Amino acid sequence: MQTIYLDNNATTQVASEVISEMLPYFQNYYGNPSSMHTFGGQIKKKIEEARQKVAELIGAHNKEILFTSCGTESDNTAIMSALLSYPEKKHIITSRVEHPAVKNVCEHMSKNGYRVTYIPVDSKGRLDLDFLYSQLTDDTSIVSIMWANNETGVLFPIEEIAKKVKEKGILFHTDAVQAVGKIPINLKDSGVDMLSISGHKIHAPKGVGALYIKRGTKFAPFLIGGHQESGRRGGTENVASIIGFGKACELSKNLLYEMDTKVKKLRDKLEEGILKRIPKVIINGDTKNRLPNTLNVSFEYVEGESILLHMNEYNICASSGSACTSGSLEPSHVLRAMGVPFTAAHGSIRFSLSNYNKEEEIDFVMQKLPEIINKLRSMSPFWKEL
Amino acid sequence: MQTIYLDNNATTQVASEVISEMLPYFQNYYGNPSSMHTFGGQIKKKIEEARQKVAELIGAHNKEILFTSCGTESDNTAIMSALLSYPEKKHIITSRVEHPAVKNVCEHMSKNGYRVTYIPVDSKGRLDLDFLYSQLTDDTSIVSIMWANNETGVLFPIEEIAKKVKEKGILFHTDAVQAVGKIPINLKDSGVDMLSISGHKIHAPKGVGALYIKRGTKFAPFLIGGHQESGRRGGTENVASIIGFGKACELSKNLLYEMDTKVKKLRDKLEEGILKRIPKVIINGDTKNRLPNTLNVSFEYVEGESILLHMNEYNICASSGSACTSGSLEPSHVLRAMGVPFTAAHGSIRFSLSNYNKEEEIDFVMQKLPEIINKLRSMSPFWKEL
Repeated sequence: MQTIYLDNNATTQVASEVISEMLPYFQNYYGNPSSMHTFGGQIKKKIEEARQKVAELIGAHNKEILFTSCGTESDNTAIMSALLSYPEKKHIITSRVEHPAVKNVCEHMSKNGYRVTYIPVDSKGRLDLDFLYSQLTDDTSIVSIMWANNETGVLFPIEEIAKKVKEKGILFHTDAVQAVGKIPINLKDSGVDMLSISGHKIHAPKGVGALYIKRGTKFAPFLIGGHQESGRRGGTENVASIIGFGKACELSKNLLYEMDTKVKKLRDKLEEGILKRIPKVIINGDTKNRLPNTLNVSFEYVEGESILLHMNEYNICASSGSACTSGSLEPSHVLRAMGVPFTAAHGSIRFSLSNYNKEEEIDFVMQKLPEIINKLRSMSPFWKEL
Repeated sequence: MQTIYLDNNATTQVASEVISEMLPYFQNYYGNPSSMHTFGGQIKKKIEEARQKVAELIGAHNKEILFTSCGTESDNTAIMSALLSYPEKKHIITSRVEHPAVKNVCEHMSKNGYRVTYIPVDSKGRLDLDFLYSQLTDDTSIVSIMWANNETGVLFPIEEIAKKVKEKGILFHTDAVQAVGKIPINLKDSGVDMLSISGHKIHAPKGVGALYIKRGTKFAPFLIGGHQESGRRGGTENVASIIGFGKACELSKNLLYEMDTKVKKLRDKLEEGILKRIPKVIINGDTKNRLPNTLNVSFEYVEGESILLHMNEYNICASSGSACTSGSLEPSHVLRAMGVPFTAAHGSIRFSLSNYNKEEEIDFVMQKLPEIINKLRSMSPFWKEL
């Protein structure tokens, strides 16, 4: 039975073109880019080519790209750099719906002398922008707001927020791990100071990411060691993965149109199918401002985990709760922040598509999902009471 | 012309067996190990198998292995964890000859309220142990001493130091990036609390490392995010590289005997050839306590960089100065700490072998190296004065 992979916000399949680019750097060109000999030194050029490709995907200059080991490291680096660069400022602003890579750093710093303001969202997952702007003070070190929510796909008006934050002379960071490669992003003339990217969300391998750092931004390294990455990150470069990441960015740029057409159509087909054939469902998040590949749906009076397990029998892959913590049974902090009722939050499933998905896969899901939900509801005491 | 790679302390060729293990995890089993579905979840088991293999190479328990993105991250994590776990202790002890991943963190912390004691070495690169032990105080948070020096290969008596440090109730960390896979290491019943490993020094890909953390050791995460690595490091696991790293550790364990026989013999052959055929050379470091693969030799009155460039013409790869900073022209801090005279320090070359080197390669180097040194010396005003 073939795997139907609708969990692309958790991770993606590495593209064949990416693997082809990477392979020579394991056994043929395996030198250290810092070496003086040609065998190692020639690899520097390939890293710079990859840097250029990452930059092009987001409308940045190649010197503004710092390679990291993952989106989490990019997020940690951005926030800690801001706090270290402006040690006198003791206030952080973020949202209630951030990924743990931002949320947990903020919580950690709140126990270390920092005041953290969490901007709430409404029932559709939209930020309270007026409240955000009212919280900007001279003591604010950094504002970190994600570009797209990983669970609901809701998009935040990052360009507008960045502009307002910038006007106050405050650093602005965005975790764009879910947005990059799914919507067009152009940082030229934007107010964004730092932006996090992850390779494995756009068909590059796991274990590589990047942080955009606008030229002129004060920066303090997170990983301290050798002179690599222009002295901004110690550690021998993850050569093969960086080269693969560059290729993945190039591919992503060329597929942005497909994301907004083909992938979006498939997602919409799945959404419409569910709404038509399954009663008592709620689409979570602002459907007017949403990633083209993401669908978060609550099946009332059913446990999300049970749905996942039943779909698993048919090799259908999706998530309940947050992508990276879906192994846990904790209710999603994102849906809780949106005020989604308990009975609905616990029955929420995230479907996230990629360019690799096919219409037949959506048809297959719609063939199986109604019977799964029916079966589970028939066993639920809450459902019977209705 | 074939490449003669004698720069294995900088980085190594990825083993064919390692690549074979990794490949299925890019395109076939590409799920997120945190996922609830079998497609992703099954990968957890493979990560645990890799963890077991890393543990076995150093005589540790699998629960004591934390995967990181590189040796530098392992070193940073160890030191910062100690400082965060014992915030009242404001003293760090390290050596004068550490890798920048330790050295620069200590220097950074010395500007942030910490007192750092740097243990000196003698002309053979041996630590002043009595001085080290005399510096242990109640205020000492961590002692971080490398197992083997990356430039000279000099081995420090880590088991003895760890025992003495442990007796005082102080945390002991060792950067064993150069030692692991080259000499037998067994941490069972040792006093070592934390130990850093890098994948790409033992024929795994770049971008993966590990930190051994003895059970019961107080620990504070460095990368903060999701629940991965038992809550000790956020960020989606670098699945393919971790699996490859596990394989590389298994291979390394089986090749330790070859390292101490075949590789050592080749290194000794190179050393003897140089001593016999080239006048005015100095072998740097304690040759009685040295990695079996490393040879650091100073050719007096010649620039190391010039030697490298001439060897480069014959595709012979080696390093001058430190592995990872060999791109710079700064004189090596290691050789300076040993008091190697200026004229010798500047003409130092590090040859570092691996199991992949062959006798013909050493013969070829000995065919070319004397004429290179002769030629360079004939152009040196200092040499003519002699």
